[in-house]
Amino acid sequence: MSKKVRIGLIGAGRIGQLHGKNLVRSVPNAELVSIADPFLNDTTYAWAKNLGVENCYKNADAIFEDLSIDAVFICSATDTHADYIIQAAQAGKHIFCEKPIHYDVATIQRALDAVEKAGVKLQVGFVRRFDHNHKVVHDTVASGKLGDPHIVKVTSRDPVPPTMDYVKGSGGLFMDMMIHDFDMVRYLSGSEVTEVTAYGDVLIDEKFKEYNDIDTAIVMLKFTNGALGVIDNSRKAGYGYDQRTEVHCAGGCVQVYNDLDNTATISTPEGVTSAKPMWFFLERYNNAFISEEQAFIQSILNDEETLVKGMDGLMPVLIAKATELSLTEGRCVKLSEIEEKFLTVPL
Amino acid sequence: MSKKVRIGLIGAGRIGQLHGKNLVRSVPNAELVSIADPFLNDTTYAWAKNLGVENCYKNADAIFEDLSIDAVFICSATDTHADYIIQAAQAGKHIFCEKPIHYDVATIQRALDAVEKAGVKLQVGFVRRFDHNHKVVHDTVASGKLGDPHIVKVTSRDPVPPTMDYVKGSGGLFMDMMIHDFDMVRYLSGSEVTEVTAYGDVLIDEKFKEYNDIDTAIVMLKFTNGALGVIDNSRKAGYGYDQRTEVHCAGGCVQVYNDLDNTATISTPEGVTSAKPMWFFLERYNNAFISEEQAFIQSILNDEETLVKGMDGLMPVLIAKATELSLTEGRCVKLSEIEEKFLTVPL
Amino acid sequence: MSKKVRIGLIGAGRIGQLHGKNLVRSVPNAELVSIADPFLNDTTYAWAKNLGVENCYKNADAIFEDLSIDAVFICSATDTHADYIIQAAQAGKHIFCEKPIHYDVATIQRALDAVEKAGVKLQVGFVRRFDHNHKVVHDTVASGKLGDPHIVKVTSRDPVPPTMDYVKGSGGLFMDMMIHDFDMVRYLSGSEVTEVTAYGDVLIDEKFKEYNDIDTAIVMLKFTNGALGVIDNSRKAGYGYDQRTEVHCAGGCVQVYNDLDNTATISTPEGVTSAKPMWFFLERYNNAFISEEQAFIQSILNDEETLVKGMDGLMPVLIAKATELSLTEGRCVKLSEIEEKFLTVPL
Amino acid sequence: MSKKVRIGLIGAGRIGQLHGKNLVRSVPNAELVSIADPFLNDTTYAWAKNLGVENCYKNADAIFEDLSIDAVFICSATDTHADYIIQAAQAGKHIFCEKPIHYDVATIQRALDAVEKAGVKLQVGFVRRFDHNHKVVHDTVASGKLGDPHIVKVTSRDPVPPTMDYVKGSGGLFMDMMIHDFDMVRYLSGSEVTEVTAYGDVLIDEKFKEYNDIDTAIVMLKFTNGALGVIDNSRKAGYGYDQRTEVHCAGGCVQVYNDLDNTATISTPEGVTSAKPMWFFLERYNNAFISEEQAFIQSILNDEETLVKGMDGLMPVLIAKATELSLTEGRCVKLSEIEEKFLTVPL
Repeated sequence: MSKKVRIGLIGAGRIGQLHGKNLVRSVPNAELVSIADPFLNDTTYAWAKNLGVENCYKNADAIFEDLSIDAVFICSATDTHADYIIQAAQAGKHIFCEKPIHYDVATIQRALDAVEKAGVKLQVGFVRRFDHNHKVVHDTVASGKLGDPHIVKVTSRDPVPPTMDYVKGSGGLFMDMMIHDFDMVRYLSGSEVTEVTAYGDVLIDEKFKEYNDIDTAIVMLKFTNGALGVIDNSRKAGYGYDQRTEVHCAGGCVQVYNDLDNTATISTPEGVTSAKPMWFFLERYNNAFISEEQAFIQSILNDEETLVKGMDGLMPVLIAKATELSLTEGRCVKLSEIEEKFLTVPL
Repeated sequence: MSKKVRIGLIGAGRIGQLHGKNLVRSVPNAELVSIADPFLNDTTYAWAKNLGVENCYKNADAIFEDLSIDAVFICSATDTHADYIIQAAQAGKHIFCEKPIHYDVATIQRALDAVEKAGVKLQVGFVRRFDHNHKVVHDTVASGKLGDPHIVKVTSRDPVPPTMDYVKGSGGLFMDMMIHDFDMVRYLSGSEVTEVTAYGDVLIDEKFKEYNDIDTAIVMLKFTNGALGVIDNSRKAGYGYDQRTEVHCAGGCVQVYNDLDNTATISTPEGVTSAKPMWFFLERYNNAFISEEQAFIQSILNDEETLVKGMDGLMPVLIAKATELSLTEGRCVKLSEIEEKFLTVPL
Repeated sequence: MSKKVRIGLIGAGRIGQLHGKNLVRSVPNAELVSIADPFLNDTTYAWAKNLGVENCYKNADAIFEDLSIDAVFICSATDTHADYIIQAAQAGKHIFCEKPIHYDVATIQRALDAVEKAGVKLQVGFVRRFDHNHKVVHDTVASGKLGDPHIVKVTSRDPVPPTMDYVKGSGGLFMDMMIHDFDMVRYLSGSEVTEVTAYGDVLIDEKFKEYNDIDTAIVMLKFTNGALGVIDNSRKAGYGYDQRTEVHCAGGCVQVYNDLDNTATISTPEGVTSAKPMWFFLERYNNAFISEEQAFIQSILNDEETLVKGMDGLMPVLIAKATELSLTEGRCVKLSEIEEKFLTVPL
Repeated sequence: MSKKVRIGLIGAGRIGQLHGKNLVRSVPNAELVSIADPFLNDTTYAWAKNLGVENCYKNADAIFEDLSIDAVFICSATDTHADYIIQAAQAGKHIFCEKPIHYDVATIQRALDAVEKAGVKLQVGFVRRFDHNHKVVHDTVASGKLGDPHIVKVTSRDPVPPTMDYVKGSGGLFMDMMIHDFDMVRYLSGSEVTEVTAYGDVLIDEKFKEYNDIDTAIVMLKFTNGALGVIDNSRKAGYGYDQRTEVHCAGGCVQVYNDLDNTATISTPEGVTSAKPMWFFLERYNNAFISEEQAFIQSILNDEETLVKGMDGLMPVLIAKATELSLTEGRCVKLSEIEEKFLTVPL
């Protein structure tokens, strides 16, 4: 393999362009050589050319067929992820795939199977693992210096609700939004989820009901290592992107607050004001995106395991399914029940 | 009634002595005239005399029979609270009673009934309502300026576990410790609890199992106003008394952190250190105790309702019973189920 | 001496009543037996009786002549402090004296001389040394674990300017307000001031000029141990009592922020607000007053040196005089110049 | 002018490479076409080629002679800045010049004169004006909503001292380090300095004395708008890059704290620890560098004044000279004295 990893980008929408720009500007060992997007137009083309991308295609096949390409970034619509993974794996390309791999467990397992057979690397885009704050929580817990984790807490609130057009195809709050937090609790606890109970409702906007979705939820979780966890989600914080994590262990607690726009404090007789949390994921996880891309490239160059593997893409989907069932049936749901129901091959 | 409220203190243990000292030193309109404690000894006697208390009895009857006494502070063992309430009510004395009133719902109802019939005032000792921090959360939510509450969060962790001797007679984590938080979520949400689900375990010390108790728990709650809530408890924070509350509303979020021992920050090449949270409730709620005593005295002098009424003493016990059932049976439990089962008279 | 220290309070104005109330309520080993105030009236009398004070006089002589009194608290007008110190010393009473001892150096020296000859204890009311925050800064520096102090910074801003009636007799910003900070830098640096340079002006209210006073000032200082320091003062912060200290040492920095009214943070789309600093010295240094009183009583009971000695009363006055000269003449002023000019007996 | 500003970079050392990389990666309207560095070697050449730079020269003349180049970034040794400015101005190129322009006032004036005659834009590299934190302080003061500024405070401490080799040619603490703070107080106060008094010493490392330099300093300043100011500098904070600013105005105070590596807090029985400030200027002012480059390019494209003009390069040098004199002679020094002495043409 060349010392630079040659990359093909599949899907040049918002998140695809983010990865593309970062790869060119901030990942020295990556070389973005081709993009493929079925909706390729003049704007996309100009964007790509401006970044120095050599080839622009409408069809991803051209990327899979290009023997000079080492790895692909799959940033297309969610329902195409699994197929692209399989095609990329069969073409022997390493794969970075945006989350979630798919909503269907069997389809995910088929994709992971293809990856394993091909022996290529797969990294799933759970970007928060690369956040400078959450990573300290993880590292502190993983170091063992605080002892066993007892309570894992994640707060995740979007600044404003998505459009109803987005909601319609989102897969629902658990699969679209809390899935990041399901990944986060696995990451922070260093353990697997064994049971969930979900409370959720439509408190922000009645329109969510039209799509059988909710906008506010709290979910409790149990973990194999005995820890207990809780996640709270809101589609509308209003004051910015509220992203806090906390793990309380036998020997103490590690927690992170939000990144703020600035550290200014203004004190007057009327009160004391300070900056709001960064607005949304593009601001807050800006550096985390770069870190996850660099990590993926490094795992290829050093022939090491990726930091977010295929199983890390599958498990949160299973947890989301258990959570959906818990909410629907108003009861505690064990993960084993979901695994028996959905897994085509046992874990 | 005299302009000073003349008080008899029943039970002169740790919490009784705290109230006694505060009444004398920090509540100008209160006059502590008598104490009664079955375990009265030379030390208690000296303590009382030093405070200027006129009479010391072993039997509380002497207090109930003293026509010059306006109000009693019941700080005796929990299982004696209800009886003393009834006796005090029948004697026409206003009543401050430490929490919980009792573990048995019928007994509580009997006590409340006596209070209502006698037309005396009753305040239950949920001291955290008078904390300078939590009060701001409550006042902000109650003002309505943030809109309807959506998510109510309470973190409550003791610095170190109690002795097993204490655990044995404590009534268990939900009835002894989380009962404060059950009161807090009612106070902060301005609403009643309709359902709970409990996750809990022994993660700190195996000895809790011997008393059929747990040391770590997370409980989710639903409220009549549609809000969702979550409480997390640990018997061992280690770093101090971790007491944080947060309410996320339609229009924003209000939250409070811990009070620290001091505001000092020490920055060295090895890292940045700051002060720990105040150690335990005596330190953290020191001023809140004084405020609750002053509020009780004022409610008598101004003939106003107390800020923590009889029903506020009953409801957390019902919630605790629902939580116990949820944990035992591993399912979501509606409050209506508990109310039907335990209430002798409907609410 | 009796196990309780019997105290006579001289001057029952605002600060005198504060000490009186604290001594009765919060200093178990103190017994406030008499007060003397030339302006004694029905209100003062009622206040004293309410506290259980036995004797109320107009003339302090009655206190000095009372052989049963162990110690006096001198809280009268500043220009009477020195005379009362001398009388108390000659009567063999231990002395707590509010700051400053006097504006005149010779007079101070005379008072200190009387104290030394009588062998009684003298504590000067520099209350901030007993603040829970500043004390951590001092203790950290004094422990030596951060190495030699390099930079000492004190910010001290009043919430609102005093009345012009107060300003008239205050002795000016340096002698009335910054004198606390001159004490603070000596306390924090563990060293004596050798030189000062003052910048100051009237920026808040032109009326200060009528009294030849200023309302805003910054003063730089040099210390015998080589450290450099800076104090900034404003008569009008507006947002509360701004009291911050910081010492940067060879091995790191220790600093304290303000105590806030509460820890609440309210986050909305409009911004994030938090509580203001405590309003003024009665709120901020409430506990510090109690601590200084307890420390004084303990120094008597244990026959130990007081924590703020006579010299600690004299030195800030010398520094204030140097600062006044620096501002007037627009130049750096060495303390040695002031000492030569004002001291009747060398230090 | 082309829609992209074509740039020649003069001096490809650490700061030159930083600007070069940023221009290529983060300033879309900039095109880095040439670099010139007298010490050009294989490493520099490879670095430039990797960035897509077309031409690499040893002599800057090639850049001045290239008619296609619109603007230059002067990042060479300080003593060459002024000559390059003059050459660039005469060649009709816009100029970004790293600070300081020169240590010699007459030389600076000559350079500014050339810029004015040529009618090209000049921006001086005071990068902190573009910091997200300090900018809020400036904007808040400039908005006038807090009223007139009264007290301006700047703390600036390096993490570790520079090498003695660097110290030797640095121009001294005031000209090399505090010059940034002299710019900052002008920026924050919106006013000119009229007088300074300096206290400074060697407290960290005796070797500074060999180069007639100091390592610790506090400087007081007066401003034309009546405000008072103070700057403290240390060459060795140890715990990171301590960069705080604060302006207290008639109506309140605005202040900024340090940016930290992360927001994590770890609480254990041993204490509470949090992250250190970002290590040094490359970390802390990373985004500020990009912002200042973008601002320069925008000022060219929009034909607007730059945000840090020639006079902003001259004034801090005059202030530094006044400060040096104050330290040497141990007295307050008015800026007018320095202006009379050093200016070849009145301001």
